[in-house]
Amino acid sequence: MKFSIERGTLLKALAQAQSVVERRNTIPILANVLIEAEGDKVSFRATDLDIEVVDRAPAMVERGGATTASAVMLHEIVRKLPEGALVSITADPASARLTIAAGRSTFSLATLPKEDFPVMASPDYTTNFAAPAPVLRRLFDKAKFAISTEETRYYLNGVYMHTATGEDGPVLRCVATDGHRLARIDAPLPANAEGMPGVIVPRKTVGELRKLLDDDEAQIAVSVSETKIRFATPAITLTSKVIDGTFPDYSRVIPMGNSRRLEVDASEFAKAVDRVATVSSERSRAVKLSLDEDRLVLSVNAPDSGAAEEELAVAYDSDRLEIGFNAKYLLEIASQVDRENAVFLFNSSGDPTLMREGNDTSAIYVVMPMRV
Amino acid sequence: MKFSIERGTLLKALAQAQSVVERRNTIPILANVLIEAEGDKVSFRATDLDIEVVDRAPAMVERGGATTASAVMLHEIVRKLPEGALVSITADPASARLTIAAGRSTFSLATLPKEDFPVMASPDYTTNFAAPAPVLRRLFDKAKFAISTEETRYYLNGVYMHTATGEDGPVLRCVATDGHRLARIDAPLPANAEGMPGVIVPRKTVGELRKLLDDDEAQIAVSVSETKIRFATPAITLTSKVIDGTFPDYSRVIPMGNSRRLEVDASEFAKAVDRVATVSSERSRAVKLSLDEDRLVLSVNAPDSGAAEEELAVAYDSDRLEIGFNAKYLLEIASQVDRENAVFLFNSSGDPTLMREGNDTSAIYVVMPMRV
Repeated sequence: MKFSIERGTLLKALAQAQSVVERRNTIPILANVLIEAEGDKVSFRATDLDIEVVDRAPAMVERGGATTASAVMLHEIVRKLPEGALVSITADPASARLTIAAGRSTFSLATLPKEDFPVMASPDYTTNFAAPAPVLRRLFDKAKFAISTEETRYYLNGVYMHTATGEDGPVLRCVATDGHRLARIDAPLPANAEGMPGVIVPRKTVGELRKLLDDDEAQIAVSVSETKIRFATPAITLTSKVIDGTFPDYSRVIPMGNSRRLEVDASEFAKAVDRVATVSSERSRAVKLSLDEDRLVLSVNAPDSGAAEEELAVAYDSDRLEIGFNAKYLLEIASQVDRENAVFLFNSSGDPTLMREGNDTSAIYVVMPMRV
Repeated sequence: MKFSIERGTLLKALAQAQSVVERRNTIPILANVLIEAEGDKVSFRATDLDIEVVDRAPAMVERGGATTASAVMLHEIVRKLPEGALVSITADPASARLTIAAGRSTFSLATLPKEDFPVMASPDYTTNFAAPAPVLRRLFDKAKFAISTEETRYYLNGVYMHTATGEDGPVLRCVATDGHRLARIDAPLPANAEGMPGVIVPRKTVGELRKLLDDDEAQIAVSVSETKIRFATPAITLTSKVIDGTFPDYSRVIPMGNSRRLEVDASEFAKAVDRVATVSSERSRAVKLSLDEDRLVLSVNAPDSGAAEEELAVAYDSDRLEIGFNAKYLLEIASQVDRENAVFLFNSSGDPTLMREGNDTSAIYVVMPMRV
């Protein structure tokens, strides 16, 4: 195998590969990237056995072939090469070395045989559809903060992507929850997505997927089976196992009858929550919301360290209400609001509260109260 | 005690106080800052019992007095207040609370009596002189990377500041070493600094001192005794114990007869060292320098992972030489060079090597070789 490739192109192709590779590996070949050169393209494949990413880049291929070498080391070397350098890469099967040459630098890395590299099997995908990158970005970005980190509740360690019926018809829906808060984000159902099996996309996959979604113009090809999900652009294919479990029936925890409506500038609200939470100890960051006509007082009382209070002018015309929340949850939820005011719908101080942006029901959040 | 102060002024004054405070304290009052209001000034005092910092700021003092409150919490609160806010601070001795009010926010923090705060005793300083901030900045910045982190060699855990005789007369000199590399930085001796006792300034003090030295126009008042050192600007006074130990006789390890001279662009050299070091394992990052007429080849050979080589055009007209160094030490030393080329003076592959910037002998570095 022998090919030449521009440093910037190579760096981009290796960036996602080295990100998928786990830093601590007991199986040596999982630290490597499989490099395959053929025609006028080189592909870089990396896996942690749950996720596989293949990145294709144009190159001047002099001699086709394939080998594997350390993904992290190769990425580090290329990163440190001068911008604009032409990188020449040669595999020598006799010495089991990969040579990387650029300018007056030469590197040689140990290789492992390409035959040992575990290529992920492709299932029969039952659903194939395309979605614009910004649509998928919104679905996952607004849901992922609520993913649970409790390993015992493994079925909550991801975003549940499925089809559902929204207010205006069929939707592609992403839901995440950790039992304390929940995010439910909808987008109009893309063509050919009907009948898609619901899948729980793992946290790490959500993170890796994010890198495919930066280009506003990109169309992402999505393929789904009962066990795997694949996201593809012309350059990158990301395949992931989905979590083997049943996502709980989340619809029961979404309050539908909450009638006490608070409208508040989301950014002012978040800053005030952040300020008053300063005085509480790290663990129980409970913030109390005291609501009265068009007036919200945020307060924290931490007997050991101190107390804080801040008043905000808001729109509220219901009965007096006092309700407590974890400050971190309030901050995360308020930061999902981009354009309009945050609207909170309360029932009582012991019931789950609903939050959305203005009157937009395509992204709703539920947060459980805390006793204060 | 009651005073009002502009948020930016207060934030700056608290920044250094909270930086001196250790995050984990067994003595509660050491987490606090002593606030003293009098006349048209408020001072903020913090200590870890080895270092004390006092920061003075102008304020509208309505009622003089003093108390102590959590330095970190107070700093966090002020940081989160809106820019330009006027902050009103009131101590209530009856409730043992400090109230911080700004706009529609009110905070109250637990206090501890001012009498319990350990104010550092001032010794009789035997030497008092003034030095421009940029001079002290250069002395400490260029030496500090070589400070040892080995706690058993506590007398190397700081920068040895003392007077000496340089090539052009008496100098103020800073030396740091960890036994593998050494930095010796000179500045012309300031007036009134003659006879100053040599002191070992601890690593943390060097870090805190750095924040006093940013203003190019500032004159720093330096006071030295056998046990303490004090640096002062009109706004800030930093007092520190010095390390109670004897700094070793470093002059014996500075090679004077090294005659093989290499001159190289420091930035190109550093980048090349960084690149070739990529292939070696984390622990023994040995880089081999192979010198021949006007030619330097940097190489690394890590049998397990790979090998790397890079050639640089340099000025060298002595015999062939092969010598190995720890890559990290070479990078740190090369990064001290600001204006001219780096000049290395070698003896043999087993002897310490000297590095300086061009022909400037006011900053010299010694690095021990490694077997490669």
